[in-house]
Amino acid sequence: MRTYIKDLKNKIGEEVQISGWVNIRRDHGKLIFVDFRDSTGVVQMVVLPNHEEAHQLAEKIRPEWVLEIKGKVNSRPEKMVNKDEDNGSLEIEVLAIDVISEVKDLPFEKGTKLNLDTYLDYLPLTLRIKEKKAIFKVQACIVQAFRDFLIKEDFIEIQTPKIIGADAEGGAGVFEVDYFGEKAYLATSPQFYKQIMVGVFEKVFMVGNAFRAEKHSTSRHLNEYTSLDFEFGFIKDHHDIMNLENKLLIFVANELKNKCQKEFDLLEAKIPNVPTEIPFMKLKEAQEIIKKEFGDDCIGEPDLEPQHERQLCEYAQKKYQSDFIFITHYPVEKRPMYTFEDQKDKGFTKSFDLLFRGVEITTGGQRIHNYEDLVRGIKKKSLDPKKFSFYLQAFKYGMPTHGGIGMGLERLTAKFLGINNIKEATLFPREINRIDTLLNK
Amino acid sequence: MRTYIKDLKNKIGEEVQISGWVNIRRDHGKLIFVDFRDSTGVVQMVVLPNHEEAHQLAEKIRPEWVLEIKGKVNSRPEKMVNKDEDNGSLEIEVLAIDVISEVKDLPFEKGTKLNLDTYLDYLPLTLRIKEKKAIFKVQACIVQAFRDFLIKEDFIEIQTPKIIGADAEGGAGVFEVDYFGEKAYLATSPQFYKQIMVGVFEKVFMVGNAFRAEKHSTSRHLNEYTSLDFEFGFIKDHHDIMNLENKLLIFVANELKNKCQKEFDLLEAKIPNVPTEIPFMKLKEAQEIIKKEFGDDCIGEPDLEPQHERQLCEYAQKKYQSDFIFITHYPVEKRPMYTFEDQKDKGFTKSFDLLFRGVEITTGGQRIHNYEDLVRGIKKKSLDPKKFSFYLQAFKYGMPTHGGIGMGLERLTAKFLGINNIKEATLFPREINRIDTLLNK
Repeated sequence: MRTYIKDLKNKIGEEVQISGWVNIRRDHGKLIFVDFRDSTGVVQMVVLPNHEEAHQLAEKIRPEWVLEIKGKVNSRPEKMVNKDEDNGSLEIEVLAIDVISEVKDLPFEKGTKLNLDTYLDYLPLTLRIKEKKAIFKVQACIVQAFRDFLIKEDFIEIQTPKIIGADAEGGAGVFEVDYFGEKAYLATSPQFYKQIMVGVFEKVFMVGNAFRAEKHSTSRHLNEYTSLDFEFGFIKDHHDIMNLENKLLIFVANELKNKCQKEFDLLEAKIPNVPTEIPFMKLKEAQEIIKKEFGDDCIGEPDLEPQHERQLCEYAQKKYQSDFIFITHYPVEKRPMYTFEDQKDKGFTKSFDLLFRGVEITTGGQRIHNYEDLVRGIKKKSLDPKKFSFYLQAFKYGMPTHGGIGMGLERLTAKFLGINNIKEATLFPREINRIDTLLNK
Repeated sequence: MRTYIKDLKNKIGEEVQISGWVNIRRDHGKLIFVDFRDSTGVVQMVVLPNHEEAHQLAEKIRPEWVLEIKGKVNSRPEKMVNKDEDNGSLEIEVLAIDVISEVKDLPFEKGTKLNLDTYLDYLPLTLRIKEKKAIFKVQACIVQAFRDFLIKEDFIEIQTPKIIGADAEGGAGVFEVDYFGEKAYLATSPQFYKQIMVGVFEKVFMVGNAFRAEKHSTSRHLNEYTSLDFEFGFIKDHHDIMNLENKLLIFVANELKNKCQKEFDLLEAKIPNVPTEIPFMKLKEAQEIIKKEFGDDCIGEPDLEPQHERQLCEYAQKKYQSDFIFITHYPVEKRPMYTFEDQKDKGFTKSFDLLFRGVEITTGGQRIHNYEDLVRGIKKKSLDPKKFSFYLQAFKYGMPTHGGIGMGLERLTAKFLGINNIKEATLFPREINRIDTLLNK
């Protein structure tokens, strides 16, 4: 019966069986010390020369060997206790070793500082590094919190297809698929389906892959990412969406506090403090502030440049002590054809971006629910409504006011943890020159 | 402030605001009755002629119009009470109507029996049918239960890419993607990544899209589906996996009982009764039974035909009163290159299928964890180990014994609910001739 390493402290004096990987072996004369890990923790093992068979085997073991160990859990002598380690007050005296897997040579010494390309070349090995594992534990916690919150709010999870006939955003940067001789595409977002499903369930959410055929390789972009989306009906305006997202982020931050404080500490990152009311302002106002506070004149521009996003976050921190700020009312021409125009502020939309620590982390807004308006919106973008006939049915047959948001899980993870390159917050990142291994180009 | 229809019974005598869709309008002389639904339920509304403005509007409303209603919650007179309906003892007296969306004509009368093609042509409308919504509520519950169980068992959720360089199963039936001028493919399963991640986290699970370029259109196949996968390390053999799956299914069935009994009743389906120990037998034994009990000689065949799966389920029901039966030990040549061979039963693998009500619902097994064995397995399938160098790293650098399962969410939903065609258990099914709309072929 296997004991997990986290439970060893309750087994002092007992014989146990543990399984895991060798972190490192250190020889002190005839004593062989092994740092040994499983998914729950790390423990120090010692192999004494009097356990001959085990000792002979232990002389051969190397990092990443997989072992099943029979051993005795001993308290460490007082002066050997290491209070900073989880199992710093105990030690396993190895009685027998069963080798599950041997490893010949590692491509680099454990603990070597790796550049990004080497890290990516050896992901099956490098993902085992403690700090890397912490990133993806946090990511799992974020996605779980996202769902738990929305289920609590009576949202229904849906599964949407990724092979699509026409792209929601109008066709740029889309991967093409050979669909039995026809051209099909990979979805850049689940936008159409989540709107259609508001007509069915009112409140829906989804977690799934999204694809962007962007040709540039930067620290902010991925060619495939995980999109977290929610969409719901019978809203008054975009503020209903922003309020729900605000509550969602509070919930996520609390879950991270409860479950991932250790991982944030390890990565020297700070769990975001989400205010009860995230401040918001119109793009126009934001541009006035940028000019006034930072001397940068971008008034009348249709969008914010990266440095403006950073400036606004600096301002929100100073003025509202908030890591977050919503910017609303982007112009109609900068937003997709389904975006709802503010009738009281013509030319501008009831849409928003959420900025966090200098970067946009979500995009959302109210959508057009009226069939004729949506057809007009499509035409205005020089697109052909016939191509959207399936999607348009939802509106022809009665849609409520509605809206929602989409956010990239990897970007969110990276920003929460202060990771500079989004690829490090993605298990197996796709980039223009790499699908796991480098492409031969 | 909106009141949900499910909460109306606590508001008798009060004025409320409700929002939703018109199911149907019925005129009785000057009285206009409207069956009205939101995501939480249905209620009968009545528009009296003395509320003139509302009455004039009500004369125009048609099915699927979206309305915001101000009304008074009245008890129905004793003789009008309908005990079979959720809100059968109350009625909304409409005071004011706000039209959110109008609908001109529906393509067919509500309640018309539709053939599958018409149903699929009009999904944004036909998914609103009560029975169809029930299917996807059950599906959401299954996927939620799948995750909740595994999280409780300390599994970690991971996000895996769908654009891949080489296919896990060896290349047949794979969609091709144009990846910046290079050939890439859509993953038929997350197999490689979940194995790699066992080397990182020991216990992982994932929910994601999988793609099969199968050219046949049957009631059992989809070209894109949702794959539920788990994989874990340090197993003794495939029985550890089968036991965990057994527990998982018990958990899922309990969750369905707690949350979806109403949906199962509506669809006249029976929540599966999962035995504490699902019976299991080797393929060889199963073939003997098929011959003895059903007179069908398939002894020595490498796989089961559909009628054999049905016969074995019949047998399991009769002999063990079980809806489920595991068949183990499929021959090496019928299983993928990573499948673990049983050294005590050479030529046969520690793999299994789970049969349920006549159909295979999951495939699983122990995988090869030894690097040299895996390279041999790859070569035996006439594949080139060089193409799998990324995946092979996991094994080169130390893997524990491990295994897992994959199951199709849509097939599971269909079989649980007794739905004959898997397309009806898929929100937006992809088939050879259809991506939402029929392809022009």
